[in-house]
Amino acid sequence: MKAVRAVLHFLKRGGVKYIFGIPAGSVNAFFDELYDMKELTPIIVKHEGAASYMASSYAKYSNQLSVCIASSGPGATNLISGCANAMREQLPVLFLTGAVPVSTVGMNASQELNAEPIFRSITKYSVTVNDSKKLLTEVAKAVEIAISGVPGPVHIAMPIDVQLQQVDLATIPPYPIRTPIYPDMMAIKQAAIAMVSGKSGFIFAGQGARGSTSLMLEIAELLQWPIVVTPQGKGLIPDNHPLYAGVYGFAGHESASNLVNDAERKVMLIVGSSLGETATNNWNENLTKGRVVIQLDYDSTVFSRKYSVDIPIHGDIDLSLLHLHEYLKDLGAKQDREATAEKSSYQSSKEFISQDVLLKLQDFLPETTRYAIDVGEFMAYVVHYMNVKDVDTFDINIHFGAMGQGIAAAFGSMLAEPDRPVVCITGDGCFFMHGMEMLTAKEYNLPILFVVMNNARLGMVYHGHSLQYNRSHPRFEQQAVNITAMSQALGIPSVRVESLDDINKYVINHLMNVDGPTILEVSLVDENTPPMGERVKFLSSFGKV
Amino acid sequence: MKAVRAVLHFLKRGGVKYIFGIPAGSVNAFFDELYDMKELTPIIVKHEGAASYMASSYAKYSNQLSVCIASSGPGATNLISGCANAMREQLPVLFLTGAVPVSTVGMNASQELNAEPIFRSITKYSVTVNDSKKLLTEVAKAVEIAISGVPGPVHIAMPIDVQLQQVDLATIPPYPIRTPIYPDMMAIKQAAIAMVSGKSGFIFAGQGARGSTSLMLEIAELLQWPIVVTPQGKGLIPDNHPLYAGVYGFAGHESASNLVNDAERKVMLIVGSSLGETATNNWNENLTKGRVVIQLDYDSTVFSRKYSVDIPIHGDIDLSLLHLHEYLKDLGAKQDREATAEKSSYQSSKEFISQDVLLKLQDFLPETTRYAIDVGEFMAYVVHYMNVKDVDTFDINIHFGAMGQGIAAAFGSMLAEPDRPVVCITGDGCFFMHGMEMLTAKEYNLPILFVVMNNARLGMVYHGHSLQYNRSHPRFEQQAVNITAMSQALGIPSVRVESLDDINKYVINHLMNVDGPTILEVSLVDENTPPMGERVKFLSSFGKV
Repeated sequence: MKAVRAVLHFLKRGGVKYIFGIPAGSVNAFFDELYDMKELTPIIVKHEGAASYMASSYAKYSNQLSVCIASSGPGATNLISGCANAMREQLPVLFLTGAVPVSTVGMNASQELNAEPIFRSITKYSVTVNDSKKLLTEVAKAVEIAISGVPGPVHIAMPIDVQLQQVDLATIPPYPIRTPIYPDMMAIKQAAIAMVSGKSGFIFAGQGARGSTSLMLEIAELLQWPIVVTPQGKGLIPDNHPLYAGVYGFAGHESASNLVNDAERKVMLIVGSSLGETATNNWNENLTKGRVVIQLDYDSTVFSRKYSVDIPIHGDIDLSLLHLHEYLKDLGAKQDREATAEKSSYQSSKEFISQDVLLKLQDFLPETTRYAIDVGEFMAYVVHYMNVKDVDTFDINIHFGAMGQGIAAAFGSMLAEPDRPVVCITGDGCFFMHGMEMLTAKEYNLPILFVVMNNARLGMVYHGHSLQYNRSHPRFEQQAVNITAMSQALGIPSVRVESLDDINKYVINHLMNVDGPTILEVSLVDENTPPMGERVKFLSSFGKV
Repeated sequence: MKAVRAVLHFLKRGGVKYIFGIPAGSVNAFFDELYDMKELTPIIVKHEGAASYMASSYAKYSNQLSVCIASSGPGATNLISGCANAMREQLPVLFLTGAVPVSTVGMNASQELNAEPIFRSITKYSVTVNDSKKLLTEVAKAVEIAISGVPGPVHIAMPIDVQLQQVDLATIPPYPIRTPIYPDMMAIKQAAIAMVSGKSGFIFAGQGARGSTSLMLEIAELLQWPIVVTPQGKGLIPDNHPLYAGVYGFAGHESASNLVNDAERKVMLIVGSSLGETATNNWNENLTKGRVVIQLDYDSTVFSRKYSVDIPIHGDIDLSLLHLHEYLKDLGAKQDREATAEKSSYQSSKEFISQDVLLKLQDFLPETTRYAIDVGEFMAYVVHYMNVKDVDTFDINIHFGAMGQGIAAAFGSMLAEPDRPVVCITGDGCFFMHGMEMLTAKEYNLPILFVVMNNARLGMVYHGHSLQYNRSHPRFEQQAVNITAMSQALGIPSVRVESLDDINKYVINHLMNVDGPTILEVSLVDENTPPMGERVKFLSSFGKV
């Protein structure tokens, strides 16, 4: 069989259902095989950048490797942003790119590009396979690398001739399974003893806690320790949990800061956070000062980067939490502390301002709704104000921070969990980058509600720059665009709201009950400074004489 | 002064007028300086990918270095496609990216990315400057590298703190000037002798002949040698020149093939072509067989790649042609051959098919109009059928072949030569990638006419795939979008035509006389096979058992 066919059979066996990308000459062979292989659906997008973000998000919510494909040349380079995002978010995505025939390398063939080195630093593995007999073994190797240890993206460039050559494959190799990273039991025991002996402590949860929140909550409840989450961890703990103390870091809550500043909290259990800029209020040293610091992570490079860690525990987080919980119970942990966490839920006032819009929206949306949050001014309001009503309901990618990524992330969530409602919160700037994927959502009947916060400017840039420099270049302003009019021209149901009263259950129900994408355009220029917290101070702190 | 201010002064002295990009936290310092420096206009786009293409095109038509800037992280990665295109097209573009403060590297700061290695293989120079005292010298070095020898893009990552630190600069270094590459006079003389002694010959001109066409034509006229051009060289020679014999290669002309197949043409003068796939009908061996081959290029790596070259002449093409012309005159060259070239201009029939649409459009557009051609099915029709009425009037980027690039290229041409009308010919697929830049054109009042060939599919993929495999995946089809309705919602004047009669002087005059962008949407599904020539045979030739 053709080498590409063998690759597709291998991926199909591994449970791959979707291939995100755009067809082109150098990957025609690959796409042609999909004609006969109905189990694999190509999700053909408008810009490969969106495909790369969709694949990342799909990997996240399907808990498996996902696959993205593009042509040699511009198709491959259009994937780079999503690949860098997947690397940062530690998501297993197999990026496949076409390449010119081996014999024509260096001869200026159409769309010739050596993509391998471009991908290298933003993948765990990047290779060009020049021998069709090795294609499948290289793909299997790449998949194993992608899902192992610290997961992440991998890239394989496939020359046209390599794809098409016949390979003799009696057996297609088994699809790799992730080998769990078992934590060191001595370290777990040491941590349990420290936690029980410490008078008081708290849990600091990052996005690495995703999928392990019930175990984490059991520990919190056992010890009656409050939990703060990072901005990317927002959504892991519902607001109504009595031990939840809010978000620490970018756009965070006073309740969380108070907890961190409470010198009586002598033990800190960090679960799945690399303690980056946005999670730590620019590496605020109070975070760990005077504390016994325990950190659980599957990524051993996060230990003692900026903060010294007393008990680092390297292992899969669910395994570490499971064993930690057992040791704590063995040690008779049952502290009877009252919950000291303040509530971090907000009551909407009645103004047409960002937070009230977001809160009012939530009043009419199902509790299980997942919010795919794009990058912009609105992100700060989301982190600070929106309510968490169910576990794992916020998808926030503040680290790499790619505009338009949130639009694509909504696709990944919807395809991975079709029964869970998905609402994307995005802005006009993001919409102008990847908003044309609304057409893709329409073509695939994906009922995603896109809320476009339309302020006719790059709000985060405007506010951030103005705070830092007390002025902003006139070119930062944009001409206003009526996105609803545009969407309606595209055949996508859309409603434009210009006051808080315009947001009501009839509007939301209408938009949520269409068999395809819909748009709620919020026409609002919010002159309030968003709750960005320390970000501007961070930017301003450099270059002082 | 701040290090970034010094950089901007340096660039301003070098004649830089525009900075293409999008502002963001990690380049705020840079953008803030533009507030005071009115000579430099930021062209703020909707997607950095478009900025990268615009900068490339501006470099091409302004004949100078151009500058593109983006944030650390996603801003930087969104530039990669345009940077790879600039590398392929040998255009001097300085790509500047922000980076996280030096002290926070590896600490997971917001939008942290080590962009240096991603850019390395697609630039002539890529570096992160970690010392503000070295920033300006590194920029000067990069600019010199970009414009020297074989021009190309360069990249500098500037950490936030490095941008902001004060530097003591008594003098800003002089702006580099390109050192001409002088050809070897002995080789020129040898070539002249071969050309005069040969009974007959022809000129094969690639895009490297741009800017040297009058010298090239003088030689052609002196010897009465016909000229064929490559697809990317289309537009260099007006059709009405008696020695012009059409396009050879992708979507080329029979007149050009006949010339190449004429065994009596014993000498071939190649001017500025790397003899790549699309220029040579997939490296057709008849091209040079039995001929004395002379090749002029500033890029010495193009010699004897696939074809053996008898007299390679390494030097700036205008200098080589100048000296060659003088030697030829000295040798008394004045052959009195009649022009044997066939005419390659076409008469439109009266059907609503791609070629007739393009030809009819030209009837109503000024002769000096430059056509920025995007990538798609229409590209083949443009190369094959459109008339060349003035020198250097076609911008075709078939090599890297990035969809949406043509939309941005129109901006570069318009900004570099504001008095020359610009018409972009693009498709719906390209429009969905970078069509939102229409809003940028509107914000900057750029009177570009965008002709959108709307066939609700990726036509080139559809035809290419169908020819190769006799079937195409149902997902290759898209739902039709009324681009005119959408454009009108964006406030951009637009006309949709659905027959040949709809294209007339009133419509075109109306669209060409608006103080901003306009759209002509051609709603046409052309079931004819585009004149792609050998491309499909090339793709199909691999993997045969």
